[in-house]
Amino acid sequence: MSGNYKLLIGYDGTGYSGWEHKDGRDTIQGKLQAVLTRLSGGEVSVIGAGRTDAGVHAKGMVANVHLDVELSPEQIRDYINRYLPETITVYEVREAAERFHARYHATGKTYCYTLWDGKAKPVFERKYVWKLEQRPDVVAMKAAAEYLLGTHDFAGFCKNPQKKKSTVRTIDRIAIEREQEKLKVIVHGDGFLHHMVRIIVGTLVEIGLGHMEPAQVKQILETGDRSLAGPTAPAQGLCLMEIDYQ
Amino acid sequence: MSGNYKLLIGYDGTGYSGWEHKDGRDTIQGKLQAVLTRLSGGEVSVIGAGRTDAGVHAKGMVANVHLDVELSPEQIRDYINRYLPETITVYEVREAAERFHARYHATGKTYCYTLWDGKAKPVFERKYVWKLEQRPDVVAMKAAAEYLLGTHDFAGFCKNPQKKKSTVRTIDRIAIEREQEKLKVIVHGDGFLHHMVRIIVGTLVEIGLGHMEPAQVKQILETGDRSLAGPTAPAQGLCLMEIDYQ
Repeated sequence: MSGNYKLLIGYDGTGYSGWEHKDGRDTIQGKLQAVLTRLSGGEVSVIGAGRTDAGVHAKGMVANVHLDVELSPEQIRDYINRYLPETITVYEVREAAERFHARYHATGKTYCYTLWDGKAKPVFERKYVWKLEQRPDVVAMKAAAEYLLGTHDFAGFCKNPQKKKSTVRTIDRIAIEREQEKLKVIVHGDGFLHHMVRIIVGTLVEIGLGHMEPAQVKQILETGDRSLAGPTAPAQGLCLMEIDYQ
Repeated sequence: MSGNYKLLIGYDGTGYSGWEHKDGRDTIQGKLQAVLTRLSGGEVSVIGAGRTDAGVHAKGMVANVHLDVELSPEQIRDYINRYLPETITVYEVREAAERFHARYHATGKTYCYTLWDGKAKPVFERKYVWKLEQRPDVVAMKAAAEYLLGTHDFAGFCKNPQKKKSTVRTIDRIAIEREQEKLKVIVHGDGFLHHMVRIIVGTLVEIGLGHMEPAQVKQILETGDRSLAGPTAPAQGLCLMEIDYQ
């Protein structure tokens, strides 16, 4: 049965060179394409909702792929899961409209960045958090996050902004939630620039540790000056949680 | 300050040859003793509440150690955590009575065994669960677990029972709880024989998959015949959760 299939994907990004296929590198897209090419007997192209960087995880990546196979969506899912490495899984396969495109039709994304500030070590979650040596001031972090809400030019929170491409994005939610020793920064917006969430988190942490003032976020937005923002938070704390489609 | 300290310890047992110190092997006790010997400047002995097998995890191991150091319990904890590998942590250090002995004074233990029976793969928890290919019948498993409650001779659920040592133990709680794709078998008792929890879980899974009847548990208890029980469940799904002291 020929069709366009929508895949909901999770992966432990540790050790991968990110989502996007690159020859000679371990990538999530590359692994999926290899398995689906084997299934369909011909070259296939897996279109992801976006790219995640090397070391970034996902619990809600979405992709679409055109396949011509005599299998139900459940059988496709089970086949993929059988042959994928244990660090990648497909939660769900669904038939989608023929014109559905995972990247073009995405209208929003949710990322979660997990900080760890306990005295004990994150033994079981060590590959999925950024361990801080000190407990940050969450009130200051929340005050800083307020400045990011809304539609802004996020050039100051972007690695290598390209002149021809817009760096204007809209963030409509930033929540900072404590779960015992974990501090989760959950960000929802219409789209994100390269390293944007990680630079936002790196900046919020600087503010939480008292090295910067919350109001400096306003200045970074106004000047678009990357050098005024905090460091890029490590990839391993970041997880792509959800992609919105209307 | 010379004292007897009680340690609450967590570890990812993956790659370790278990709790108990063995020359030339990576063990949890060995790592702790090395760090504490370094701290105190003299050989120390870390007494654990019990031994865990190779590959078994812990979130609630308790140990005691006699130390003569000029540090507060918090400083001892921070020192240990700084020098331990990232797979072992000390949650808490407390001063204990001089005669407190982590093994002799333990009155009960709680273990949790985590099964995974989802169609997707346990990408983020793959080292902490036993992945089943089929969904077991939880009603049958619960019926079987009922037979284990109470005081019994558990020789049939023990690896290499020793004639001179009692194989009678009391289990006062076995809960089987679903959390999405995880099925947790939580067992509380006054003590456990070698491989006892893992053989119990291996047997409950055989029953859940319809390969054995719940009533066969009664027969295993009555005969003490290990060959009638199910296989030993893999170490990686097992976690020592709590040690009781009165």
